Amino acid sequence: MSEKKKKIAIIASKANLADAYPPFILASTAAAMDYEVSIFFTFFGLNLLKKKGLKKVKITPVGETAMPKPIPQIVGIIPGMTDIATTMMKNWMKKANVVSLEELRELSIEAGVKMIACQMTMDVMKVKKEELIDEIEVGGAATFLQFASEADITLYI
Amino acid sequence: MSEKKKKIAIIASKANLADAYPPFILASTAAAMDYEVSIFFTFFGLNLLKKKGLKKVKITPVGETAMPKPIPQIVGIIPGMTDIATTMMKNWMKKANVVSLEELRELSIEAGVKMIACQMTMDVMKVKKEELIDEIEVGGAATFLQFASEADITLYI
Amino acid sequence: MSEKKKKIAIIASKANLADAYPPFILASTAAAMDYEVSIFFTFFGLNLLKKKGLKKVKITPVGETAMPKPIPQIVGIIPGMTDIATTMMKNWMKKANVVSLEELRELSIEAGVKMIACQMTMDVMKVKKEELIDEIEVGGAATFLQFASEADITLYI
Repeated sequence: MSEKKKKIAIIASKANLADAYPPFILASTAAAMDYEVSIFFTFFGLNLLKKKGLKKVKITPVGETAMPKPIPQIVGIIPGMTDIATTMMKNWMKKANVVSLEELRELSIEAGVKMIACQMTMDVMKVKKEELIDEIEVGGAATFLQFASEADITLYI
Repeated sequence: MSEKKKKIAIIASKANLADAYPPFILASTAAAMDYEVSIFFTFFGLNLLKKKGLKKVKITPVGETAMPKPIPQIVGIIPGMTDIATTMMKNWMKKANVVSLEELRELSIEAGVKMIACQMTMDVMKVKKEELIDEIEVGGAATFLQFASEADITLYI
Repeated sequence: MSEKKKKIAIIASKANLADAYPPFILASTAAAMDYEVSIFFTFFGLNLLKKKGLKKVKITPVGETAMPKPIPQIVGIIPGMTDIATTMMKNWMKKANVVSLEELRELSIEAGVKMIACQMTMDVMKVKKEELIDEIEVGGAATFLQFASEADITLYI
């Protein structure tokens, strides 16, 4: 290939359901368009790289005032409502033929998306490399900046 | 105009009051500076394109620890406190001569800001095109990426 | 230096502990790599520029479903739990040798990071320039856009 590939650099910093999808949707779409894609997983976003636990990603009805069918804030803090909101959203997505988070991650890896786990977050949250999926690198903010400075699109999610 | 216009591509993914303003403020300012502006409305951000409902955009005191006059978390979950926090912030903004969300959206449209509703979000949240304002296009992640890869500034809000 | 320096433009819009660190970590790292760095502090992010109050930046366990050791949402709203979660995270960071927010801000300033306080936010939240640290400028969205349009990396945090 003599043409220069387009590049996108994403920071994935959150792990609730609404913020967990966008990095993988954008990454897999960009990879399908033959972009070079890199995601840097930091802070709560590191959880998205765990072998086990992607199914535990949840959406909480508390704090988001724009749930499609709004759940009163007072109800949102009742134990179990986070699970109910998560199940509701997962069902909506299934009906709309949106693939699961696990499938999107798998798809992104197969499409060649480069995934980098934040070293500092691993230290702070005491996460071992063995807990994370195999197809990753470990790096720091400098690793991200180096790639991002060459990228056409940079996003902090 | 022979000079190449500057471009900015924004993703608007949230719909609480504090996150609803920035896309429209940045977009209308950029358009006034003669930038080419595109906003992609996805996830909860799709609500910002609804004909009715922009007035329903609220700020919740729960989960944000830095409200100007902090409201204790315990109070934040009492029914009604979300409305009170919303009214407080709207009043502060009015006093500071900040235009309303409705006006900012109108201003952005008049200034030529291109607004794209996320097809997948419409499917997931069962939102019909008729519920959204007329001056929009419907598209997917690929539509955003194409524009963003040519942009000078890319932001995920 | 005849080579053109790389540039990064960051918007810091939030002030809870998890979102307060990334702007300063990225900024100080980028400055150490000899980038030209600009941070625009807006909305709740303006609090990060206050002379007093950086120690008051807290993390709330409510609304974030991915705390390393999850705290049930119902517990999260009990008065005091925000303080406990904040102390927990600060301790984790200390053990992992992560410098404090105060130190990171100081470090960023010494490294030449340019910090801009959002004029509109100051008006809305009635924040006086004297309440903010001395090493800043005051500007609007246009100020940010001008710098960002020349930047290699643009991030909204």
